[in-house]
Amino acid sequence: MKFLSKIKTPSLLLNETVCRRNIERMSLKANVKKIDFRPHFKTHVSAEIGNWFRDAGVTAITVSSVAMARFFAINDWNDITIAFPVNIREIDGINELASRITLRLVVENAFAADFLGRNLKNRAGIFLKVDTGYHRTGIAPENQKLFDEVLSSLDKYDNMEFMGFLTHSGQTYKVTRKDAVIEIHKQAVSILHTLKNRYIDQYPNLILSVGDTPSCSIVEDLGDIDEIRPGNFVFYDLMQERIGSCSYDDIALVMACPVVAKHPGRREIVIFGGAVHLSKEFIAGPDGNPCFGLVVEPLSDGWSDPVAGVWVSSLSQEHGVIKSDNKTFFDKTGIGDLVLILPVHSCLTANLMKEFRLLDNRIIS
Amino acid sequence: MKFLSKIKTPSLLLNETVCRRNIERMSLKANVKKIDFRPHFKTHVSAEIGNWFRDAGVTAITVSSVAMARFFAINDWNDITIAFPVNIREIDGINELASRITLRLVVENAFAADFLGRNLKNRAGIFLKVDTGYHRTGIAPENQKLFDEVLSSLDKYDNMEFMGFLTHSGQTYKVTRKDAVIEIHKQAVSILHTLKNRYIDQYPNLILSVGDTPSCSIVEDLGDIDEIRPGNFVFYDLMQERIGSCSYDDIALVMACPVVAKHPGRREIVIFGGAVHLSKEFIAGPDGNPCFGLVVEPLSDGWSDPVAGVWVSSLSQEHGVIKSDNKTFFDKTGIGDLVLILPVHSCLTANLMKEFRLLDNRIIS
Repeated sequence: MKFLSKIKTPSLLLNETVCRRNIERMSLKANVKKIDFRPHFKTHVSAEIGNWFRDAGVTAITVSSVAMARFFAINDWNDITIAFPVNIREIDGINELASRITLRLVVENAFAADFLGRNLKNRAGIFLKVDTGYHRTGIAPENQKLFDEVLSSLDKYDNMEFMGFLTHSGQTYKVTRKDAVIEIHKQAVSILHTLKNRYIDQYPNLILSVGDTPSCSIVEDLGDIDEIRPGNFVFYDLMQERIGSCSYDDIALVMACPVVAKHPGRREIVIFGGAVHLSKEFIAGPDGNPCFGLVVEPLSDGWSDPVAGVWVSSLSQEHGVIKSDNKTFFDKTGIGDLVLILPVHSCLTANLMKEFRLLDNRIIS
Repeated sequence: MKFLSKIKTPSLLLNETVCRRNIERMSLKANVKKIDFRPHFKTHVSAEIGNWFRDAGVTAITVSSVAMARFFAINDWNDITIAFPVNIREIDGINELASRITLRLVVENAFAADFLGRNLKNRAGIFLKVDTGYHRTGIAPENQKLFDEVLSSLDKYDNMEFMGFLTHSGQTYKVTRKDAVIEIHKQAVSILHTLKNRYIDQYPNLILSVGDTPSCSIVEDLGDIDEIRPGNFVFYDLMQERIGSCSYDDIALVMACPVVAKHPGRREIVIFGGAVHLSKEFIAGPDGNPCFGLVVEPLSDGWSDPVAGVWVSSLSQEHGVIKSDNKTFFDKTGIGDLVLILPVHSCLTANLMKEFRLLDNRIIS
């Protein structure tokens, strides 16, 4: 294929058509339900892909660090939520950002709320992070005392505007049935509504914000919420396919890796392409052992679904081992050929590779 | 501690004293036995740390890609082995390097040998990769036909000089007893000597090269070999400590991560520091589940051994969760503090972070 001919080293290919379709589909879903679409840009961290979101009408975004917020602020995004418990050591960077863009921060404890109150030099919006069952961060819904304490801290200072309640139902990443995702989302929305009902009189403009790609992809009716913040859907990956968030042909990324060795006795193909390219994230493979990617074949306008019986069975720093129980695939793949691999977790792969090669051979970052 | 005061975001700290000691110890071990020390630079990929090796007398190095070879050639290293089965798609880069430095390549199949013969424009040294039991790459020792075939291909062309036999006993990474490492090394050396005996009359200058950090660290008498190529020992890490290659105080790297949340109910501390900082490599934790790092405490000149009952129990893209069964540690660690984490696999962590902060706050890369 033409888009492979210039590749010499492990390269992350991006199918722009599929990526734009993912963006448009999610944007449409939000628009139809009159839900604000504030996509998470941590998955791609690319100025150019950011512009594809602009083409779909997006004007406000989510990121997960001050550095990312700074990067996108430089690239003309001026309404940014940093959806990560505020890192008080970065108060200077936060102040700098708050002085020039609409900045929203996430707080999940009284200490950080009070710290921001005392140190924020410009007004910022504040979301309270709610733990709706993922148990990573957030205030437990039943901890009314802590909600009250943090909210009274916000009220005490003029530089913080309470925006509403925000959650990330990351537990959807651990299930593999659509009905389980739907149930998790329903529960999260229900928890957020209980909070809303409790505080709406005091804060009539508070909004509810949810985030995970599985819920936003799978749940038809997202319910009475105000904002969605999915990120991974821009590329999708094998983890999302396993969960049921997407089909294989929604995956917009593939890693192209040169073949450097073949071992017929154990039907293994060795590629230049390892943990520093794909990441060590894995799913269960056909043999029950970790699988670090599935192999597809190039087509004129992209690539196929996974080839049966072929997968990445191990990764070291720069080497990858492809197990091929598929004799046809093994036999026809030669030294110097490229093997195309669907990534297990596109966020980590994109972070490692930093740049994307489009099918017209243009490199974007 | 002074070296922590300026840190705002996840930072990889490097204790120069420990790192230089690791370098000097390995260098001395090789020198005493009159073995050439050709360290693998893939672990650090740092021009400055390269200079610390120069201070210890090193003049020849190993890397795992053409790009790394180019980087170190620019930094005045002119004798480089690319210890990776040659990637024929990079022939232009290989030719460019071979025109200006002493370049050694690794071949493990007839196709690549013949390709190099037809396409190398300058003379390069060629090692044959031998599979001494790791079963990742290399020619199986019993496959005399393939050795003969590749060697006759090398002989056919003037641009390739056969250097000798090279192996990487990566299976040592899978054991956790020193005697198992010693046994693996002994076997590898024995296999290489069988090959040497077979071919020494034909190639009187052939050398034997071995590589892995566990063998080079643990085995007292490395035996009758000509060259060692360890890499990871420059920093060591928790995987190496588990294998028995080092003690905790030989680990030269620690990741400093800001605390952003605390959850007393489940004794969890959440840090800004995730898979994009530490990598998803794991060892078994105290509870039998994956552990992505152990926590240490700062000392005036570095850091302590791991704190009992405290470990990184999960990582997502930017979040890390520290489980602290240790109540004292949990209670004294506050929002905005830094938690110091020994990495599981320093090669992957260093690759993600790209730069190192020394204890005098100087940043090197």
